[in-house]
Amino acid sequence: MTHTLPITIYYEDTDAQGVVYYANYLRYFERARTEYLREIGYGQKKLMDKGAIFIVRKISIEFLKPAKLDDQIIIKTKLLKCGKVTFDFSQEVYLKKEEILCQALVRCGCLGTKDFKPVGLPSYLHKGMKSLL
Amino acid sequence: MTHTLPITIYYEDTDAQGVVYYANYLRYFERARTEYLREIGYGQKKLMDKGAIFIVRKISIEFLKPAKLDDQIIIKTKLLKCGKVTFDFSQEVYLKKEEILCQALVRCGCLGTKDFKPVGLPSYLHKGMKSLL
Amino acid sequence: MTHTLPITIYYEDTDAQGVVYYANYLRYFERARTEYLREIGYGQKKLMDKGAIFIVRKISIEFLKPAKLDDQIIIKTKLLKCGKVTFDFSQEVYLKKEEILCQALVRCGCLGTKDFKPVGLPSYLHKGMKSLL
Amino acid sequence: MTHTLPITIYYEDTDAQGVVYYANYLRYFERARTEYLREIGYGQKKLMDKGAIFIVRKISIEFLKPAKLDDQIIIKTKLLKCGKVTFDFSQEVYLKKEEILCQALVRCGCLGTKDFKPVGLPSYLHKGMKSLL
Repeated sequence: MTHTLPITIYYEDTDAQGVVYYANYLRYFERARTEYLREIGYGQKKLMDKGAIFIVRKISIEFLKPAKLDDQIIIKTKLLKCGKVTFDFSQEVYLKKEEILCQALVRCGCLGTKDFKPVGLPSYLHKGMKSLL
Repeated sequence: MTHTLPITIYYEDTDAQGVVYYANYLRYFERARTEYLREIGYGQKKLMDKGAIFIVRKISIEFLKPAKLDDQIIIKTKLLKCGKVTFDFSQEVYLKKEEILCQALVRCGCLGTKDFKPVGLPSYLHKGMKSLL
Repeated sequence: MTHTLPITIYYEDTDAQGVVYYANYLRYFERARTEYLREIGYGQKKLMDKGAIFIVRKISIEFLKPAKLDDQIIIKTKLLKCGKVTFDFSQEVYLKKEEILCQALVRCGCLGTKDFKPVGLPSYLHKGMKSLL
Repeated sequence: MTHTLPITIYYEDTDAQGVVYYANYLRYFERARTEYLREIGYGQKKLMDKGAIFIVRKISIEFLKPAKLDDQIIIKTKLLKCGKVTFDFSQEVYLKKEEILCQALVRCGCLGTKDFKPVGLPSYLHKGMKSLL
């Protein structure tokens, strides 16, 4: 199950090189992970209100080609592995479904909001995520 | 003719106060102006390729209530005045169509890409914008 | 008493027009207000820990000339008025001390962290701010 | 030769989790690489005017602990390898010189501004960078 999120590139996304500033791909990846989770019923705020937050532990990202102003890009997100406290995503950026611009492996974790210590995913959410594999 | 753009609030939009960081409303306003223009046929990139760019000259903005993580906000944009080199927009942020969060008056201008000097809007675009009044 | 904060322009600050993206001046203004307050002994975090936060209620800003990549700009901040719950700043952006790029009037307020309702400034802070007039 | 850049954390850097938003570390890394190059005489703008730009090809980053509002962090940058068209940096974020928050390996490249195709570093810059090893 691959999740797909279309994103439009605005001036705010670009830099003086005329292309998307490299850090912004991480913003798009997080929008996509957020929408992916929302589809199985878990908004980030709902999760936070229950005392848990998602964080990124590691990311490896390769920038292949740049996106530009007014481009319509597509973020493809796939859950690769879902443990009790960490879960791995593959995330890719495409231009018009054919041309890959950027690819990443992302390891996320779940922390308690009070102490920022690792906690297991709430079980209903763990079940929901397992269903994405 | 009021243009409407829905926007979802992600972590990237918020700050440690738990609400949307104030500068980000200017990003949303620009996304909305960009989509408004796109509807009458003018992407920012197309305009830039023709040697002109839009810039903001002035903005007065009032922050009434904060937007929060996972909120679905709506940006309402209305062209108030369209001169040859400047044009004024009213832009407002709503939460769920009823509750106003933020309101602004924005004066934009058109510059040449080479010298950053004011130029009149290309006539086809000027006509298109006039039709929005 | 005018406070001065130098800022260097990096790629992250610019957009595809080759100049600083307009919303970013609001980020610089906030950095400057934060440093101004820090000089009289109040970090934003310390204030937050005491149950109060600063927010911006209104801003009027005029963009005169753009800052560019690698520019060294200077933010000049001056407290104009200090009431019990609101305070007004004048903030300006200069290039190399002579050339004004941007000017703004900013009205700030103080809110309680729990209910986001207006509260008077803590008295020690109010005294400190009065001393800046 | 390790380059050191201190950075102060402002509201703009944080998100609703109360800590620095993860994508922002990439902004700090770029500020640091830019200052590192400036020390050997190459501003990004000067380089761009000569027809070359630096881009990031790959980054692997591990987030260990979060930085918070008002923190003073330190970015440590070290050139690991300097080829003709790619060069590798190690970059780390410290809190108060002892506590590591984040570590990354960054592969950069040099492109021509016109065609975005890889080009060798200008020889004077290549020499300067070699001196950093």
